[in-house]
Amino acid sequence: MRTSRRSAVDSFIVMDVMEAARAAEVAGQDVIHMEVGQPGTPAPKLARDGLARAMEEGPMGYTVALGLPALRERIARHYGEVYGVDVAPSRIVVTSGSSAGFILSFLTLFDAGDRVGIADPGYPSYRNILGALDLQVERIEGTVANRFQPTVANINSGLDGLLIASPANPTGSMLDRDALGALVDACVASDVALISDEIYHGIEYEGRAITALELTDEVFVINSFSKYFSMTGWRIGWMVVPESHVRVLERLAQNLFICPSHASQITALHAMDAGQELSANAEVYQINRQVLLDALPAAGLRDIAPPDGAFYIYANIAHTGVDSRTFTAKLLAEEGVAATPGLDFDPVRGHETVRFSYAGPREAIAEGAVRITRFMKQFDS
Amino acid sequence: MRTSRRSAVDSFIVMDVMEAARAAEVAGQDVIHMEVGQPGTPAPKLARDGLARAMEEGPMGYTVALGLPALRERIARHYGEVYGVDVAPSRIVVTSGSSAGFILSFLTLFDAGDRVGIADPGYPSYRNILGALDLQVERIEGTVANRFQPTVANINSGLDGLLIASPANPTGSMLDRDALGALVDACVASDVALISDEIYHGIEYEGRAITALELTDEVFVINSFSKYFSMTGWRIGWMVVPESHVRVLERLAQNLFICPSHASQITALHAMDAGQELSANAEVYQINRQVLLDALPAAGLRDIAPPDGAFYIYANIAHTGVDSRTFTAKLLAEEGVAATPGLDFDPVRGHETVRFSYAGPREAIAEGAVRITRFMKQFDS
Repeated sequence: MRTSRRSAVDSFIVMDVMEAARAAEVAGQDVIHMEVGQPGTPAPKLARDGLARAMEEGPMGYTVALGLPALRERIARHYGEVYGVDVAPSRIVVTSGSSAGFILSFLTLFDAGDRVGIADPGYPSYRNILGALDLQVERIEGTVANRFQPTVANINSGLDGLLIASPANPTGSMLDRDALGALVDACVASDVALISDEIYHGIEYEGRAITALELTDEVFVINSFSKYFSMTGWRIGWMVVPESHVRVLERLAQNLFICPSHASQITALHAMDAGQELSANAEVYQINRQVLLDALPAAGLRDIAPPDGAFYIYANIAHTGVDSRTFTAKLLAEEGVAATPGLDFDPVRGHETVRFSYAGPREAIAEGAVRITRFMKQFDS
Repeated sequence: MRTSRRSAVDSFIVMDVMEAARAAEVAGQDVIHMEVGQPGTPAPKLARDGLARAMEEGPMGYTVALGLPALRERIARHYGEVYGVDVAPSRIVVTSGSSAGFILSFLTLFDAGDRVGIADPGYPSYRNILGALDLQVERIEGTVANRFQPTVANINSGLDGLLIASPANPTGSMLDRDALGALVDACVASDVALISDEIYHGIEYEGRAITALELTDEVFVINSFSKYFSMTGWRIGWMVVPESHVRVLERLAQNLFICPSHASQITALHAMDAGQELSANAEVYQINRQVLLDALPAAGLRDIAPPDGAFYIYANIAHTGVDSRTFTAKLLAEEGVAATPGLDFDPVRGHETVRFSYAGPREAIAEGAVRITRFMKQFDS
């Protein structure tokens, strides 16, 4: 049976690490999980209770394609409360996770062959979804100096779109108001469609993350309940789009997805009122981050830009003389710490970088720091 | 801001009917809903209870992309129990509803510009998803004589793929073993990739539906928990694919969806053991079907092929002298019965057809039959 060319996308190397970690655990090893980009916490109790009640109250059939009106209104209110920006509920599109948000954005904005700029290192699915939808990836090489973010120098009229992430995965770096504003202006000047991935908003350390909506309405913002709201497995997120694009998105979403999970929409609606539990989760990330920022550079890991947000540290290991796949395999075998080789995020330079996630429990990350420090002693620093 | 050409897909006309029905209800009218293709029943109690327990037992984060191993095994077992065919769990891909199954199938099998055959009338999203993914729709005009299904005469090497549905929406017609076998052979002979939509399996009246897997392993089968398992809003389904395509699908699914909703997967797993409740639902469809088959032809609705499965009746109204949008608008205004104009299913001939869904409660459908009969008296029969 035939197979298409466009389905030849890369797999995640982290999946190999996860499988190796699972096998090590089955074999009796005590593994610290710093490879997975998800909270170890469940959906907030308020949210789970809300769903348990709703399940007994009605059939929970299809919702309208753009999402439950109450959820769209609640998300719109969130923009007023958190960012002080006025967003009409009509501009909110509830999606089956940010994954569906990317698919819908790319199909709505771009035709086959169009060119979309993304920074490396970056979330690996960006380039893989773009490729599967026949779009050309314009690789923007991030540097420590620009904190791995695109700059106006990367914007030109050869691009059809630019996808930015702040806080970014895997670096945790954020675009401040000036940098974001400059990118917004450059995109308008060159007729480049701007997509802003804001799925790590709410998990931030030095200052509040800026939403692109503070600077312009001419942007597709993609967000998610996965990270701050601790609902990865529920596959629920949202977009904010220009009023001009709502109807197009509605038709596409009807046909491609029918609607996001009704149960997940109900759960998300209640999660938005669980501020206390969510703040407690975020405090753990704050503590974990400091533990790693104290330990990892001292252990010899290099080029770490203190993350502004998210729950990752991205480090250079070139001086160890081993490539990142070997490094993470050794780290797992010798110390039982699972981490992700940089190749998932940067196919060109990722052989010399590693990502550590600190989304896990406090005790686990503290123990991880001890083990990584011990592990690093074998390399010249 | 730009909009792509490929995002210009049709909306569902049924949405206009649903909105009109909602407005009529708000205005105080008692509306019988025969427009929506979903059960009025919730997910089975066993399934809801299973989820309520699971929510309190663990965080329910991401699952692996192909779905929970226990669910894949349970689905594989289902093929042995219901159809007597041996399907390895490794060939099962759990999806976010059949919607994700279509996206994954089309991207895995076809490149931009490839031609895929679908029968008209048919599920409107087929052609809209195909269009959004840059595929060409080869329209196969169904007839009453061939029960609106493709035949071998429609298969030729100009096609890259064929998408069949049995039972079909909107007609409820099924392909028997001989007809399905002939299509399978013709597709192999012409190197046409076969996709079999089996989402209405389990809702069947005159005999058991045949899965394409009884005849070949060289097929993509798409199924869903929405209809028989009464879980539309949960957005959970599955595919069965050739062993040769599992890895490609796994990589695509990782990148495009990460995983289906963990909560919905748990709910689906328990739903598969709720045979008693599901059989009771199916009995209601059986009764509703008979009520309509007794009433509608007598009332003057024409060309009704008694549905083998699903929960729809598709009828011709050309002799009434009004087109289907006007017909359904009048039916709603005069009798408070919501039904779907055929244009959603057949853009060419659907102005003279209407679909009635009998997935609703028994009393509602019986009352609907009375009202439709009264309504039809104004037309010459």
